Amino acid sequence: MTQNAADTVSKTPLTLLGLGAMGTALAGAWLAAGHPLTVWNRTAAKAGPLAARGAAVAAGAAEAVAANRLVVVCLLDDASIEEALAGADLTGKDVVNLITGTPGTARARAAWATARGARYLDGGIMAVPPMIGIPQAGPYVFYSGSRDLFEEHRATLAAPADARYVGADAGFAALHDVALLSAMYGMFGGVAHAFALVRGESVDPRELAPLLSSWLTAMAGSVAATAEHLAAGDYTGGVASSLAMQVAGVPTFLRTAEEQGVSAELLTPYFDLMRRRLAADPARHGAEDLTGVVDLLRG
Amino acid sequence: MTQNAADTVSKTPLTLLGLGAMGTALAGAWLAAGHPLTVWNRTAAKAGPLAARGAAVAAGAAEAVAANRLVVVCLLDDASIEEALAGADLTGKDVVNLITGTPGTARARAAWATARGARYLDGGIMAVPPMIGIPQAGPYVFYSGSRDLFEEHRATLAAPADARYVGADAGFAALHDVALLSAMYGMFGGVAHAFALVRGESVDPRELAPLLSSWLTAMAGSVAATAEHLAAGDYTGGVASSLAMQVAGVPTFLRTAEEQGVSAELLTPYFDLMRRRLAADPARHGAEDLTGVVDLLRG
Ligand SMILES: NC(=O)c1ccc[n+]([C@@H]2O[C@H](COP(=O)([O-])OP(=O)(O)OC[C@H]3O[C@@H](n4cnc5c(N)ncnc54)[C@H](OP(=O)(O)O)[C@@H]3O)[C@@H](O)[C@H]2O)c1
Ligand SMILES: NC(=O)c1ccc[n+]([C@@H]2O[C@H](COP(=O)([O-])OP(=O)(O)OC[C@H]3O[C@@H](n4cnc5c(N)ncnc54)[C@H](OP(=O)(O)O)[C@@H]3O)[C@@H](O)[C@H]2O)c1
Repeated sequence: MTQNAADTVSKTPLTLLGLGAMGTALAGAWLAAGHPLTVWNRTAAKAGPLAARGAAVAAGAAEAVAANRLVVVCLLDDASIEEALAGADLTGKDVVNLITGTPGTARARAAWATARGARYLDGGIMAVPPMIGIPQAGPYVFYSGSRDLFEEHRATLAAPADARYVGADAGFAALHDVALLSAMYGMFGGVAHAFALVRGESVDPRELAPLLSSWLTAMAGSVAATAEHLAAGDYTGGVASSLAMQVAGVPTFLRTAEEQGVSAELLTPYFDLMRRRLAADPARHGAEDLTGVVDLLRG
Repeated sequence: MTQNAADTVSKTPLTLLGLGAMGTALAGAWLAAGHPLTVWNRTAAKAGPLAARGAAVAAGAAEAVAANRLVVVCLLDDASIEEALAGADLTGKDVVNLITGTPGTARARAAWATARGARYLDGGIMAVPPMIGIPQAGPYVFYSGSRDLFEEHRATLAAPADARYVGADAGFAALHDVALLSAMYGMFGGVAHAFALVRGESVDPRELAPLLSSWLTAMAGSVAATAEHLAAGDYTGGVASSLAMQVAGVPTFLRTAEEQGVSAELLTPYFDLMRRRLAADPARHGAEDLTGVVDLLRG
């Protein structure tokens, strides 16, 4: 079904399990888009405002599952899906699991759903609840697993947030989700170090902020070069700042942290890997960029 | 002197000490902009191509310093400036030091230059040599120290790269330089972890790259909120993902790394600080964002 067809015919009805912060935001987006919606939440009171907006409220999870073919799950964690759906009949259902977890958990849950006669799609939500249903905020969800399920329900799935399919392996949505958030925590660590360096100096953090974010944005562009290097298996192409030169600069970062009374604990593991990569073969690795650190992270 | 005036009158003559990769790029930009340029390099041969383009080549550092009032230094490190300028008369000179170093080194070098009768400006170059003289590449230099020197030579300094003055404290250019690069290394660590996670899976790093860089670019926007929190001294305003919720999510990141056979060493220090901040006062800090990590980095 194309998005246009979806706009002219009646909207796909669906069931949503879980009305926490994220589930409630998703429910609001589907109601706003005109989808008939059946909801269930362990604590029933949370369904009230959605019922007032037209949602059907099921008395139990099994009843909610029975109401529609498309069943979206947005409970807290993998243990809660096991508990909530223990008595539900999943035969012929299209289960979309938006619970954050590991790739392994998603793969196991896919096998579980498939064994119960359902098609399974896993999702990783790259947004916080206030961004749901607000396209300008750029919310999106990684999906992986059944491509047929994804294609058939693409328009419905896209109502709360942009839908991006990343592979038939049910674990890939979680893998992409965790990869992006992991990179983000690395960046946040660097940012925390930067702000710590200027504390106690007469530098307004609000003046540093735009410099920091535009620098990080510019440097995020280098991710593409790293990917090219990984794909090529050679890390020396188009290198502007060699590993040798960057390792030589490390003492400046450590001494600055010391001068400013800042613990370098967030940066030393990366510097240590840079040094290990260089030391392993200075002549060969010295001319590379920093891509070789990736190799050291895998045993 | 305004930029317009500089364009119509003859360009300020200057001296450049150091013709390594960066010095050579700077020299090329000043020659291209029409500045009379005197150069000196320890290894004289490197001056040849610049002489062919019109640069005057001094036989020694003291002679190069004597040739012009404005003297730019782009040697390897702080020890080399001490060595190269031991016999030079700096009285009445405007010394601009572009050597990368710590804020403390810059402050000491400022005192050293001032004691010798010079005005002093320190610079931190936020670019690699191929970006110098290419405005579209976005190169810039942080400057700190003598504001009079900066204002007087602003147009000359801006020829190779955009010139940004960040304060009278000679250490501030280095402080800004190191802060931005430190944040970048944090981000690079996160990116390395992300690429390591997908290695061995049928995920093309070149398909992950644009997702990663646009996610990091979006998240770099949160730097402004962190700065506002630091300035306000309260870390709870407008929090979409609370520290409590994010700490609860940490096991997903650690288990994913384990499943994928990836060492989590680049992320664990940050996760540990998140946990320490929450544990210190769960009721109070649980509703904050991640800003409190900054406080834990300072003793
Ligand atoms: N919030 C975000 O920013 C965000 C972003 C991306 C992804 N996610 C993911 O979305 C999912 C939901 O997050 P949320 O923010 O909505 O969480 P939340 O506000 O804490 O809500 C948790 C939901 O799970 C239900 N639940 C918990 N344990 C249960 C059990 N054993 N049986 C049945 N129901 C159970 C809760 O029911 P009660 O109301 O009865 O407690 C509630 O509906 C999580 O996997 C989260 O990682 C959230
Ligand atoms: N390249 C970059 O990407 C970059 C970016 C930002 C900042 N910087 C900074 O710019 C400065 C220069 O970097 P670069 O890339 O041009 O380095 P480089 O290519 O290694 O050149 C080093 C320069 O320093 C000279 N030198 C070293 N020791 C000396 C001594 N004891 N006495 C006199 N001269 C000495 C060298 O002279 P010889 O030719 O005789 O060896 C050469 O001119 C450094 O502080 C660097 O951190 C560089």
